[in-house]
Amino acid sequence: MNAPLRLGMVGGGQGAFIGGVHRIAARLDGQWQLVAGALSSDPLRALASADELGLDSSRSYASWQEMARREAARPDGIDAVAIVTPNHLHAPVATAFLEAGIDVICDKPLATSQADARALQALAQRRERLLCLTHTYSGYAMVRQARAMVEAGELGVLRLIQVEYAQDWLAEPIELTGQKQAAWRCDPALAGPAGALGDIGTHAYHLASFVSGLQAESVCAELSSLVPGRRLDDHVQVMLRFPDGVRGLLWASQVATGCENALRLRVYGSRASLEFAQEQPNELLFTPLGGATQRLTRGRVGSAEAQAATRIPAGHPEGYLEAFAQLYRDAAEHIRARREGRAVAPTSRWLTTAADGVAGLAFVEAVLASHRAGSAWTPLQQEGATP
Amino acid sequence: MNAPLRLGMVGGGQGAFIGGVHRIAARLDGQWQLVAGALSSDPLRALASADELGLDSSRSYASWQEMARREAARPDGIDAVAIVTPNHLHAPVATAFLEAGIDVICDKPLATSQADARALQALAQRRERLLCLTHTYSGYAMVRQARAMVEAGELGVLRLIQVEYAQDWLAEPIELTGQKQAAWRCDPALAGPAGALGDIGTHAYHLASFVSGLQAESVCAELSSLVPGRRLDDHVQVMLRFPDGVRGLLWASQVATGCENALRLRVYGSRASLEFAQEQPNELLFTPLGGATQRLTRGRVGSAEAQAATRIPAGHPEGYLEAFAQLYRDAAEHIRARREGRAVAPTSRWLTTAADGVAGLAFVEAVLASHRAGSAWTPLQQEGATP
Amino acid sequence: MNAPLRLGMVGGGQGAFIGGVHRIAARLDGQWQLVAGALSSDPLRALASADELGLDSSRSYASWQEMARREAARPDGIDAVAIVTPNHLHAPVATAFLEAGIDVICDKPLATSQADARALQALAQRRERLLCLTHTYSGYAMVRQARAMVEAGELGVLRLIQVEYAQDWLAEPIELTGQKQAAWRCDPALAGPAGALGDIGTHAYHLASFVSGLQAESVCAELSSLVPGRRLDDHVQVMLRFPDGVRGLLWASQVATGCENALRLRVYGSRASLEFAQEQPNELLFTPLGGATQRLTRGRVGSAEAQAATRIPAGHPEGYLEAFAQLYRDAAEHIRARREGRAVAPTSRWLTTAADGVAGLAFVEAVLASHRAGSAWTPLQQEGATP
Amino acid sequence: MNAPLRLGMVGGGQGAFIGGVHRIAARLDGQWQLVAGALSSDPLRALASADELGLDSSRSYASWQEMARREAARPDGIDAVAIVTPNHLHAPVATAFLEAGIDVICDKPLATSQADARALQALAQRRERLLCLTHTYSGYAMVRQARAMVEAGELGVLRLIQVEYAQDWLAEPIELTGQKQAAWRCDPALAGPAGALGDIGTHAYHLASFVSGLQAESVCAELSSLVPGRRLDDHVQVMLRFPDGVRGLLWASQVATGCENALRLRVYGSRASLEFAQEQPNELLFTPLGGATQRLTRGRVGSAEAQAATRIPAGHPEGYLEAFAQLYRDAAEHIRARREGRAVAPTSRWLTTAADGVAGLAFVEAVLASHRAGSAWTPLQQEGATP
Repeated sequence: MNAPLRLGMVGGGQGAFIGGVHRIAARLDGQWQLVAGALSSDPLRALASADELGLDSSRSYASWQEMARREAARPDGIDAVAIVTPNHLHAPVATAFLEAGIDVICDKPLATSQADARALQALAQRRERLLCLTHTYSGYAMVRQARAMVEAGELGVLRLIQVEYAQDWLAEPIELTGQKQAAWRCDPALAGPAGALGDIGTHAYHLASFVSGLQAESVCAELSSLVPGRRLDDHVQVMLRFPDGVRGLLWASQVATGCENALRLRVYGSRASLEFAQEQPNELLFTPLGGATQRLTRGRVGSAEAQAATRIPAGHPEGYLEAFAQLYRDAAEHIRARREGRAVAPTSRWLTTAADGVAGLAFVEAVLASHRAGSAWTPLQQEGATP
Repeated sequence: MNAPLRLGMVGGGQGAFIGGVHRIAARLDGQWQLVAGALSSDPLRALASADELGLDSSRSYASWQEMARREAARPDGIDAVAIVTPNHLHAPVATAFLEAGIDVICDKPLATSQADARALQALAQRRERLLCLTHTYSGYAMVRQARAMVEAGELGVLRLIQVEYAQDWLAEPIELTGQKQAAWRCDPALAGPAGALGDIGTHAYHLASFVSGLQAESVCAELSSLVPGRRLDDHVQVMLRFPDGVRGLLWASQVATGCENALRLRVYGSRASLEFAQEQPNELLFTPLGGATQRLTRGRVGSAEAQAATRIPAGHPEGYLEAFAQLYRDAAEHIRARREGRAVAPTSRWLTTAADGVAGLAFVEAVLASHRAGSAWTPLQQEGATP
Repeated sequence: MNAPLRLGMVGGGQGAFIGGVHRIAARLDGQWQLVAGALSSDPLRALASADELGLDSSRSYASWQEMARREAARPDGIDAVAIVTPNHLHAPVATAFLEAGIDVICDKPLATSQADARALQALAQRRERLLCLTHTYSGYAMVRQARAMVEAGELGVLRLIQVEYAQDWLAEPIELTGQKQAAWRCDPALAGPAGALGDIGTHAYHLASFVSGLQAESVCAELSSLVPGRRLDDHVQVMLRFPDGVRGLLWASQVATGCENALRLRVYGSRASLEFAQEQPNELLFTPLGGATQRLTRGRVGSAEAQAATRIPAGHPEGYLEAFAQLYRDAAEHIRARREGRAVAPTSRWLTTAADGVAGLAFVEAVLASHRAGSAWTPLQQEGATP
Repeated sequence: MNAPLRLGMVGGGQGAFIGGVHRIAARLDGQWQLVAGALSSDPLRALASADELGLDSSRSYASWQEMARREAARPDGIDAVAIVTPNHLHAPVATAFLEAGIDVICDKPLATSQADARALQALAQRRERLLCLTHTYSGYAMVRQARAMVEAGELGVLRLIQVEYAQDWLAEPIELTGQKQAAWRCDPALAGPAGALGDIGTHAYHLASFVSGLQAESVCAELSSLVPGRRLDDHVQVMLRFPDGVRGLLWASQVATGCENALRLRVYGSRASLEFAQEQPNELLFTPLGGATQRLTRGRVGSAEAQAATRIPAGHPEGYLEAFAQLYRDAAEHIRARREGRAVAPTSRWLTTAADGVAGLAFVEAVLASHRAGSAWTPLQQEGATP
């Protein structure tokens, strides 16, 4: 059988956001099991976090240096490490684990400078270890479908790439109010010289490159700080020149009021165009020259690569799995509450119960009876069923 | 800490579909661990399935009867069983586990008759055990938001409920071609007297009841078999009378050409209306009388119940987690392939690599340089970066 | 040349709504010229209305009986009459003009009973005169495209017709507040026994019949008055049986809170389906079995019939003409205001002026200059240009 | 009464496109009557065109110079002239009519250079005559609504303006195939130095300025000819600096495969944002910071300015009038065909006839009967009704 691989994690302790996302993602397909961690630079928080996640206390480390050393030495050591620390630690942590011969899955960015990134790339090649980045958007089935279509030449010769990434969570100067996510991202000392550019502009650029298969040759750019007093760019606009005369625009903004996470890519070729909007990830719009726009949907059509990145049939949006998981989460809460002799959390009270099962069958039986009676109005038999 | 609860599964062996969905759902939040199973009535397949899932062979049972008995006797026995067998076994299996004092999570329908369902309901009450159904659609955050808004009176007095569930996978007589899913669903001997009605009509009805808080009082219905020769209904249309003069329509079809899984609910009240479409589960449309339609989005606004059913911020659609998981799946494949000395599966070849990390930083540095030079065109430094 | 035909109008005087729509429609293509009218049963209002419309006073009649008689006698008498009176007068007025040998364009319904309608139909046939109804929705290019596609067999064998017409303007009992449009429509004495059924249900039914080419064989229906105290139906739901086993649903509501004029048709066949939503009339969704949904747009693709019903290219929505007309309306207001020595109406103040023309050229010239200078930032030359 | 104003037209003879649009627009509201023209520089075509349009032959002029002179001298001379000639004639023709004291409605651009445009602007001011441009998109009700909301401060302080205008009709080198519209637009000798920039970039810029109330201060631009061999720009991308730190992007393309006439504006302010897409002109999306996106619809909500630019109620899209007009056009064709003893044009054969009126009443009567019989299935009485 395919036993799960053993995963370690650096960063991602209590209070962190992206660590939790990595853990769900690692767990979802049953391919990974979290077994070790250096979850926080604060030893107490590291222990508490490890306990909450059910890690063996002997594999909750006080430092990532120690973790790399000791896990490399164990016969059942981790197969890979996930790095979810603040950005400036990505390179040193990745270096330590690669040197220890351990594969690395790193949150983006790979490093804080191109020079450091190139050094890491060389190290991984030398040690023959995996060094990969979680540019999430390239994991969508329809993004892979887009790339497959570009590779297959379905767009003809590429001409134009438009990519945009609009958010609004920095539309007010919340970095002054102590909001932690905002505070470090708007502080040049912590985030480096790139604000929105580094935070989301790089995602937009990666998506454009991933789908088109092209890297820009040169850029003409302007950064702005549209919120008065902000110390880093919160709006980026860039004109791009790709090889062979392909032209592009990229804009990314964290002050585009009303936008949640509006990452959107359009690629125009001589024969057809593609459009992908991250907020509707189950579809890809394809328009051949002179023809009607086609809405390609995840699961119904697609390349082998797109099919391999989908788990459920067409029409069941990604998200169906989370809805399903919610029922399991609610059931767990009901069982725990009963055992602990306490009330169920109000937010889990809407479990689908046996009463619903009864009501459903009452409905079916009444419909069948009405139909058999030539569509006569037919009452449902239901005693005390509650929705 | 919250150790995961122990889950057993009846049904869901190799080749089954919904069992896999249950397993992902159970795993996603880290609340459940699959430890036992009677995965198939075929002993060999049961064992192979258990092995593939990493179950201890001593807890792979040849029958669900044995499983109920022995798990109930173990000190570390399962906390709950998930029933994913063919429909006619739901009631006997659930009965066995409830009798053994084990909580039950059952795929829908609860039973094949209302009488059986009521008996199960009573048994669960008597034994004080959980008996819940996986009506998935009620797990969506925005469905819970809809219910919370109805309960809070934001729609005023309810007047009208429109629910529809349109698919097209039975638009041709594929039950004659040996397609397994179709064959049993179109055979009255296996599926009972209700075709599309039982398969998806019940989901539509549950969704309408869940959100409105209402059960129908009576129905006026017509079933049709629109594909020539089909032996069960593939199209259902029902007029409904709910309490207090509320009126409704329900239609469900498995021959609505062009529809994938188009479950859609609209509820109209005296003050406002709501609309939910399952294929766009991250949004809920709300229109107050005389006002503009508002697009409520998961994560940005919402009741406590909706917030509790969401895992990631607004604008990151449910599905973001699957995209993320895809990267972890690809990384696992890369590591396994290297260790096994084989090529990476082509469908996993698009991992985001260090080269992408380098390219991203090359982009950032060029943008910063262009900006500092008054938006001068600035080349990217990139040596061998490949998308 | 094609001189415009001469049009007379019965009804449609000051304060009426639909008369104005008929006049715009008649004028838009330059095919008709309004030359005579019996615009109101109130002689003073008839005269004032005729004057406002620029009719020769000798052709403003005090009664439609007189108008039919005298226009039939004139050598330059009207070519056709448009009937826009209250419903109960449609049949007698149409009868009078048909008897006088004059073609009739009648607002719907043709009569208040099927018997009267059949009599009129027979009369028109006998007199060999045109008797047509303004079921507006059949005039949309994409509705005609839909019909052409059904006729051409592109949907295969029809199976299912879903039509709905949802409004909300009667969601409150405004008939009690003196709202005129509501008062007569909700009064059985004036509107007859059908409320929403006659007002909009008939439009829905006509659209379904027009596109499918089918008339229902039988119906199973329920009418409701969902607003307490309302004396006629404000909600209609109907199950329909069409020939050859085709099934359908029709619902029409004037209390569907949040709906403006949501007429929507879906037709499902064995090979493909079509969807048309009146509020997006420039597009038609077409989905072949197993394929992607295609968005067919007015002007880009289409049958001869659809092309003949379009005036402007693809991407210029119907409505472009109204936007264009607005500029002419504003220009007229500016000229009239100047001549009358008064201020321009505030709502016409946003005329596009010479300053805009100057600004546009300043933009063009600056862009050309920037481009020629290698994308250097280049100021616009503009002195006093105001948007 | 408000007699229509008298309109003359220069250009717009047989074969021209935009002249016909101007004539429909002028006619639609009944404010203008076309009475004179210099419709073509080719005298025969001018006469034929005038005849086709029903102009008095004495007012069909061989030259616009003569037309300006003679119309100015008539007591019933034209109130205004519409200029729809090739671009290079706009300035001289406008000059002639302004000098003659006649108001001018000019297709865009006002002139071929900023200097000429400024001279015209000064002339119009000196002669106190109207000189307006038909920047159509500013005539949409929801564009005016957008402007009114910006003026009222509903967006807070403006920060960001994104405007794009994407077409694909030049995605292939059709200027080489003799396509007339393409040939002159792609020839620097006829179109001047700006291709897509002058043709549609100026519309995008005008829309951005109209809604925001801002003119750009400086631009950083790149023009491209993405179709090999094309002699003028077919793709434009511009970064813009507006006053007070407002930033913007504009792109316009005539090679964006799959785009029909995709003009789209987004304006972001500190408190809210607006989005308008020309292909859906009946709606405007408004999103307050932290709130839900609202779909504002023409007719339902709006400023006085928006209301003044709408003719029909909410939910009746602009386009409803064209659909209505289609029925009148079809009726005219039926009458003419009968009189001329010929068959009706096939494209006008789908007139709604008395048979439809009968069928509609059969439907109403059957529904009423079914309802009264407790929703019993009730056949329709219909003899020979055809859809």
